[in-house]
Amino acid sequence: MSVLVAADFDVADWAAWWPALTAALPGEHLVRSVAEVGDDAIDIAIVANPPAGALQGLDSLRLIQSLWAGVDKLLADPTVPPGVPLARMVDPAMNDAMAETALWAVLGLQRSFFDYAASQRAAQWKPLPQHRADDFTVAVLGLGQMGRTAAQRLVQHGCRVHGWSTRPCVVDGVQTHVGDAALPELLATAQIVVNLLPLTPATRGLFDAAAFAQMPRGASLVNLARGAHVVEADLLAALDSGHLHRAVLDVFATEPLPVAHAFWSHPRVTVLPHVAAQTDPRSAAVVVAANVEALRRGLPISHRVDRARGY
Amino acid sequence: MSVLVAADFDVADWAAWWPALTAALPGEHLVRSVAEVGDDAIDIAIVANPPAGALQGLDSLRLIQSLWAGVDKLLADPTVPPGVPLARMVDPAMNDAMAETALWAVLGLQRSFFDYAASQRAAQWKPLPQHRADDFTVAVLGLGQMGRTAAQRLVQHGCRVHGWSTRPCVVDGVQTHVGDAALPELLATAQIVVNLLPLTPATRGLFDAAAFAQMPRGASLVNLARGAHVVEADLLAALDSGHLHRAVLDVFATEPLPVAHAFWSHPRVTVLPHVAAQTDPRSAAVVVAANVEALRRGLPISHRVDRARGY
Repeated sequence: MSVLVAADFDVADWAAWWPALTAALPGEHLVRSVAEVGDDAIDIAIVANPPAGALQGLDSLRLIQSLWAGVDKLLADPTVPPGVPLARMVDPAMNDAMAETALWAVLGLQRSFFDYAASQRAAQWKPLPQHRADDFTVAVLGLGQMGRTAAQRLVQHGCRVHGWSTRPCVVDGVQTHVGDAALPELLATAQIVVNLLPLTPATRGLFDAAAFAQMPRGASLVNLARGAHVVEADLLAALDSGHLHRAVLDVFATEPLPVAHAFWSHPRVTVLPHVAAQTDPRSAAVVVAANVEALRRGLPISHRVDRARGY
Repeated sequence: MSVLVAADFDVADWAAWWPALTAALPGEHLVRSVAEVGDDAIDIAIVANPPAGALQGLDSLRLIQSLWAGVDKLLADPTVPPGVPLARMVDPAMNDAMAETALWAVLGLQRSFFDYAASQRAAQWKPLPQHRADDFTVAVLGLGQMGRTAAQRLVQHGCRVHGWSTRPCVVDGVQTHVGDAALPELLATAQIVVNLLPLTPATRGLFDAAAFAQMPRGASLVNLARGAHVVEADLLAALDSGHLHRAVLDVFATEPLPVAHAFWSHPRVTVLPHVAAQTDPRSAAVVVAANVEALRRGLPISHRVDRARGY
């Protein structure tokens, strides 16, 4: 049987991923196209934004392994066979990358480094008051692998960190809150909100005018999860009214962010091109290989997606 | 006897410092002007960029306590009485602030966040390869209190950290190098150089064309110490030739940085307005009080400057 790698990679991506995957899976026959071996010869698909319909008709498929952590696009694709186990990428190196981005954003907000960048563009020498990490309450929304890692990194940094999740969760040094009812009170205490939630029907559009109104005046939003978590027009209104201080955004309703979008030139929006935690082929290929080996040996696969829950 | 506070503070600075100092020194009579009590009644001067000549004629002076960590300006002022013990500010909160700034600069370089800011100004969606902390060798020059704290924070972050100092020094997790002869080889291994040296005749102009040529192509300079450490024309040339990738600068030959200076608009220079580690009145006043009390009780004062060495 063969392993299909179905991805929207460009030449540079393939140059990084193909050697990493073939090296990590020495006993497997990897193909980039079903045509190489035929539909029935594919029992594992390794996917990264696969073209729509790429997995259709693969009746022998026993495992779909995503190279990305978020699987909302896969779950929205009706041609992805619903009965086949689907695993998402959970890579400690990605968790670390995400925690680094969260820390960088919090440091930039705490120490006014984003404001100094704006001053530099205006050639203005304008020192601002210096704040300590423990002057800030940070709310981390979503306490999956990435949320937990980011929350712990922010605790180490010295911030007061609160966490929020759908199900009860214990994270060292983090005051955790559970369920919808707890969210408004949590938002009201946070100078910085870091979003690391999965995108599900329940979290889509969570950051709307009502949520921004619950955040205190001068608070900032760091969205490292999915663009669809945020109602972008409401965010712009909250920034322009002066209620929110800044938004650091890695993800957007439409990606790449359209050239004419107001976020690009907004003085209090920081735009990152969906790079808060890129999958690193060096470590991710090893994670993939562990699941492929588990399947071959009849053992349970790791990080299997609960399709009803959506992550 | 009275304590003179001689500083170039503006109204907001006085509003922060005066209550902190008076609260930390309840048994002392603090004055802002010699005229309040007369020359002979002043035996301690707490200084922060004092006006030239402010300490002249104070024959009863027994301690000069700086509120700033760097004392190069004081030592260059011939009216500062040479025989009076001079203490500089060594405040753990300032060390932490400096380490935060160093970490923020290293994170920005490691994860291309400065480049993404440039992309945002051009409305360009341009993901770049993601690097891990352990892909980077960082050289921290100067292993005083601030250099050591910053080096340790970068070790915790996961970088390979080398340190350089005039005298032998041991820092956990840091490979240390000593003396002028060791510097060229160290510079040659570093993708990021963080300068935290004191300004002395030996370190003035250390970062010149020769030093930049020793750094590998694509390396970056983070200067958080003094502007006079850097030959600014040589730095611009090294950036413009493409040899250096970026400079993150908190300090400049002339401060405030003149409006017409090339640094303001250079696409690969990050300008901070001398805020890498501001003295925090909350913690610094306590440090001052400890030295004042030591003097009153006849005990040795802490953090006394060796005027021959220059720090």
